[in-house]
Amino acid sequence: MGNKRKELRQKADQIIRESLEAVMPDHAVEKALENYRGLGGRTILVAAGKAAWQMAAAAVRVLGQVDDGIVITKYDHVKGPIPGVECREAGHPVPDENSFEATEKALEKVSGLNENDTVLFLLSGGGSALFEKPLIPGEELQDITKQLLACGADVVEMNTIRKRLSGVKGGRFALACMPAKVYAIVLSDILGDPLDMIASGPAYPDSSTCGQANAIAEKYQLNLSERVQSLLKEETPKELVNVTTQITGSVRELCEAAAKAATELGFEPVVLTDELCCEAREAGSMLASILRTHRKDGKRLCYIAGGETVVHLNGKGKGGRNQELALAAAPGIAGMPGACVFSVGSDGTDGPTDAAGGYVDGETLDCLKQKNLDVFTVLSNNDAYTALAAVGGLVITGPTGTNVNDVAVALLD
Amino acid sequence: MGNKRKELRQKADQIIRESLEAVMPDHAVEKALENYRGLGGRTILVAAGKAAWQMAAAAVRVLGQVDDGIVITKYDHVKGPIPGVECREAGHPVPDENSFEATEKALEKVSGLNENDTVLFLLSGGGSALFEKPLIPGEELQDITKQLLACGADVVEMNTIRKRLSGVKGGRFALACMPAKVYAIVLSDILGDPLDMIASGPAYPDSSTCGQANAIAEKYQLNLSERVQSLLKEETPKELVNVTTQITGSVRELCEAAAKAATELGFEPVVLTDELCCEAREAGSMLASILRTHRKDGKRLCYIAGGETVVHLNGKGKGGRNQELALAAAPGIAGMPGACVFSVGSDGTDGPTDAAGGYVDGETLDCLKQKNLDVFTVLSNNDAYTALAAVGGLVITGPTGTNVNDVAVALLD
Repeated sequence: MGNKRKELRQKADQIIRESLEAVMPDHAVEKALENYRGLGGRTILVAAGKAAWQMAAAAVRVLGQVDDGIVITKYDHVKGPIPGVECREAGHPVPDENSFEATEKALEKVSGLNENDTVLFLLSGGGSALFEKPLIPGEELQDITKQLLACGADVVEMNTIRKRLSGVKGGRFALACMPAKVYAIVLSDILGDPLDMIASGPAYPDSSTCGQANAIAEKYQLNLSERVQSLLKEETPKELVNVTTQITGSVRELCEAAAKAATELGFEPVVLTDELCCEAREAGSMLASILRTHRKDGKRLCYIAGGETVVHLNGKGKGGRNQELALAAAPGIAGMPGACVFSVGSDGTDGPTDAAGGYVDGETLDCLKQKNLDVFTVLSNNDAYTALAAVGGLVITGPTGTNVNDVAVALLD
Repeated sequence: MGNKRKELRQKADQIIRESLEAVMPDHAVEKALENYRGLGGRTILVAAGKAAWQMAAAAVRVLGQVDDGIVITKYDHVKGPIPGVECREAGHPVPDENSFEATEKALEKVSGLNENDTVLFLLSGGGSALFEKPLIPGEELQDITKQLLACGADVVEMNTIRKRLSGVKGGRFALACMPAKVYAIVLSDILGDPLDMIASGPAYPDSSTCGQANAIAEKYQLNLSERVQSLLKEETPKELVNVTTQITGSVRELCEAAAKAATELGFEPVVLTDELCCEAREAGSMLASILRTHRKDGKRLCYIAGGETVVHLNGKGKGGRNQELALAAAPGIAGMPGACVFSVGSDGTDGPTDAAGGYVDGETLDCLKQKNLDVFTVLSNNDAYTALAAVGGLVITGPTGTNVNDVAVALLD
């Protein structure tokens, strides 16, 4: 491999490393706490989600101490004790008794606070199952979910009903913290950061209404108990004056970190989008088209597209959406010195593989041809991993401990 | 329809109108002739392709007169006499005797010129069939083509062989004009403007070699006559010192014109690419993602992507690639005031429809829902025309008389 080619790959690896670092739960929490000031009262930490332990540990490290606290995370996700914080593990993606017990415990810890106290609420993906207090028996909840699914209700309709059957969702957790203040740090894993969607928004005002909930029940002729009928009449909070929310470690920050790393390497960064959601291979083709068009601009450019692309599985190969995106860009940038396209999943695991994503440059297509690998055939078989592995085009990071979607980058050096 | 909404559509229509105008054959030729100066000798005009008549008429209008000339275009494409120019019609896409006769006539007109004379060579799409002088009988040429197709030769291999069996392709027409100068104006309809590909490059040095041609014949064990074997040994010109080429009316100019029109309307234009070649609906999704991300930038932005997208036909509906691209953007920009995405084919005919393309804005998805039209279902049935027609989302221009691919535009007003 030529020196120039090696250097380009090294630059890509540096951008990947620095982008992922910026969205690690600990870095994200540290950044979000930069502007945090207590109110003189007590600080109670409540952390829920797959990254709860990392987020809590980072918060306690930054703050020095908290007055009380609880971590509710997935089984095997507690990595050690955190001073002053009770660490609990529970069911995910399906909530279990441990989820309910731990959530009850959290509600206990935030009750009886006064207005100078602060609840530091650290929320990450998976919080919806881990942090839950059902107001009806589990079986009844399952039955309602089944009814909604059977009649074709969409996710918004499902959530409108389900929020009202929970003691913590739809802003109700923040309500329970009153009169204490809630400082929420949210590690976002949903495109566009819709705060009422992430873990069904325990500390975010609910935009849906009782009227809508009852209309849905009517529309689908749901069979509901009297208890549920009365719950659907209880309004969720529409305003939460005691809550401040910081979104952190989102795909937006992932893109911004990539832009920053690229700038440090002398590239001009262009963040195209942080809400990419199209077919992976087509995004790869389009990024390659963009590089081709600008190859004679005489600039060192870095195009960035974050989000979560889609792959349709028709073949029996091995791969992931990031690997497909990168591989699909290879024909478009073939023969272009200084051009490369790479894409990585922030969790370090792209599809069912040990790679975080893929990397291609102007010589990749030739290298594939030499191994008798045709990009179109490989993609038809969803076998990007095998092809990229054959030409040194895998990006391996290992599991990173966070998940804020993916970032794809196209460089012109 | 709200006034704001109407105004946005009017801005889009203005961008479409001005972009298409800039790439009309007459405008394109006028622009390309801005820097043209004769050498004091005679000027012979040779125009070949589907837009030959328009290009020749424009050239004579700009220059005042030419000393001799010939137009070779498709049947029914001569729109009237042009002073000093002989207008001929011939077969397309399959060449016929009229193609060969007219080409012979063109070769007569450019023979015996001296070095102060200029051949003004106006080339447009379709020139490959219309402008041809086969060096072997038509049947033999057909047989070789069939052999090449049967053994799976690619388009580059086909052209490497076929150029050598033609008296005008692969730079040989320019050679025939020697010692006169050739001023070639090429209306490009191929992405990336590969001059040796457009009409097989009658006035462009050929990059393929006899060695390659013979290797292909060997590789596929082609059954060739002695005449053909000897033709494959005759080298095509590798350098043409007498030729100046102006590419005009290309998709690049289409994009630049869209950028100019958008600038005049107060938008900040960003040309993403002029080599777009991915799946139409995915490009639409990606443009919508870009608008979503930048909706809070506080800027009036205009993203432009030119090229030729692809559609896979699985359904039985009516539509075209531009209509699919636009329709697919509707969900992504739903609810965004001031956002719109539109895409048009420069020939004014998108797919087998009377529309040039499609237009959607932030309200389109709601309008579709009111008509019980679901974007995903419509796209599955390749029925974008019907859906867009129902919500006033068609762009109708009528046939434009040119073909320089498509342009897609995403506006944030």
